Amino acid sequence: MAKNKFKILIVGFGTVGKGFFDLFYEKRDLLKLGNVEISEIIDSAYGHIIDPNPKDPLPLKTAASEQNLSVTELIKNSDADLVCEFTWVNYTTAEPALSHIMAALHSGKHVVTTNKGPVALHFGSIMETARIHERLFKFKGTVMSGTPSFDLMDLIPGAKIKSVRGIMNGTTNFILSRIREGKDFDSALKEAQKLGYAENDPTNDIDGLDAAAKITIISKLLGWGHEFGDVERTGIRNVSTEEAKRGTKLIAYADKDKIYVKPTEVSDDILKDVNGTDNAIQFDTDTLGRITMIGPGAGKRETAQAAISDLVNILRISR
Amino acid sequence: MAKNKFKILIVGFGTVGKGFFDLFYEKRDLLKLGNVEISEIIDSAYGHIIDPNPKDPLPLKTAASEQNLSVTELIKNSDADLVCEFTWVNYTTAEPALSHIMAALHSGKHVVTTNKGPVALHFGSIMETARIHERLFKFKGTVMSGTPSFDLMDLIPGAKIKSVRGIMNGTTNFILSRIREGKDFDSALKEAQKLGYAENDPTNDIDGLDAAAKITIISKLLGWGHEFGDVERTGIRNVSTEEAKRGTKLIAYADKDKIYVKPTEVSDDILKDVNGTDNAIQFDTDTLGRITMIGPGAGKRETAQAAISDLVNILRISR
Repeated sequence: MAKNKFKILIVGFGTVGKGFFDLFYEKRDLLKLGNVEISEIIDSAYGHIIDPNPKDPLPLKTAASEQNLSVTELIKNSDADLVCEFTWVNYTTAEPALSHIMAALHSGKHVVTTNKGPVALHFGSIMETARIHERLFKFKGTVMSGTPSFDLMDLIPGAKIKSVRGIMNGTTNFILSRIREGKDFDSALKEAQKLGYAENDPTNDIDGLDAAAKITIISKLLGWGHEFGDVERTGIRNVSTEEAKRGTKLIAYADKDKIYVKPTEVSDDILKDVNGTDNAIQFDTDTLGRITMIGPGAGKRETAQAAISDLVNILRISR
Repeated sequence: MAKNKFKILIVGFGTVGKGFFDLFYEKRDLLKLGNVEISEIIDSAYGHIIDPNPKDPLPLKTAASEQNLSVTELIKNSDADLVCEFTWVNYTTAEPALSHIMAALHSGKHVVTTNKGPVALHFGSIMETARIHERLFKFKGTVMSGTPSFDLMDLIPGAKIKSVRGIMNGTTNFILSRIREGKDFDSALKEAQKLGYAENDPTNDIDGLDAAAKITIISKLLGWGHEFGDVERTGIRNVSTEEAKRGTKLIAYADKDKIYVKPTEVSDDILKDVNGTDNAIQFDTDTLGRITMIGPGAGKRETAQAAISDLVNILRISR
């Protein structure tokens, strides 16, 4: 019953890459993935290594013959079956992740990513490339990390999704929870930065770009025509204490006709009680009415769970 | 590309049976189930019909030659590929549903049910029978109707479930919501009965049997050893207005060591805000912490969605 090995190449060995590496080896036996292995790691800062030690993958040691090769060339040259793209997000060019994903698909590899940029900005061309090369492209981790989100649709076949809305950014939800408790915006933001929830340049979160990318991705999956650039977007810089107390949250919403991210009072709904860094997604359906999922939207281990879910899904379908 | 027909036999043509019949024909094209059909309906009151008219299945007309056959014999004689068992619940004997399910599996048919009795009381023997006959047994609709519940575990492979809890009975949650608003138990119960949420004999709901069956089913799926009879069970008859106001809900809970259904104060948690007939389920996991799903727990169309989800799942796996 010896099956061929299934090899994984990790591109990007920051928090997500390391989290995935650790969780993969923690769960490998439980998931009966004995013939699956992480065969290679590439990181633009650390370098490149083949057959990393599962217990201690660092430092990465680029071979002398590869010193002049780009990450894209290394991806193309790899004999991996699956590339996990875990580099940083960029909402303007989607690079370098977009080139990594395309190189992987063009060279016949499945792809898992947690990177919202390429999916939100180039969904159509990536899916088309995957289709042509008969490879799978999975991106569960782009929305609410490992907490079930758009994948919930797999559990309710036939249900028509009339609209989707949710709290899709934990940083802003944390800050709004603090404002609700009486803090001002600036000190709430500083606290979020101190706790590692917000970045030094917090604009992607605060101004709603992150949530806009997520609602665009869901909208694409539902076949609605909205583009990332179409999202009507207002951040949380001007939410008052009073508004926060009345249950104002940064809500991402889409239906077939409109898509937006903006501070919205949700005092009539369970969303008003989703606090701290938790995220939530609601589907309004024709068979179940409204269903709501609440859970973490970020985190090293939480995001690694998303990539593990995608990996298992790919193994189920492709073998 | 002509495939063989896949035939469905519905046993029990009450609310759930009719709801499934209607939803199946409503969603058949969308789900690309052109070669799947409801070939037969059996109901202990209405009778038996082969090839029912999709637009107007009633009245059922038992053939003269079948007047003396039992439902179990009719199931065995059927050429259906799948039996949908939709008869009434019985928490003492699990009959007649148990005999129907066993007859179906023994005669080589897959089974979908929404009936908690057989699953909660005879999980092991039904699963073993299904295994021996290489048939599938699916029962999504037994917990929270079509709202994702235990099937969420399919979306988080590798995650260890440490405990499960939830609000798994809509009738009692409705009554507790009313008590919270100041009504007394008796008038809240009468209102629930008037609205069709509670039955004339409300004991299965009020005394926690329904919730106990659901938490037993989830516990069985997780491989914990609890039996239905093991569930420590207290109903809602003695919940005071003050307790309801503090956020007391009828909570079903299980981990590997214990299982109970009892009024519990959940004021520290999102569950306190789940009101009316909505249900909720929470999983405490090792990779995501706590995740919560909220949605309808009953209803004609909602329960039909669960059976449609099971049907699609069976078609995916078995063909």
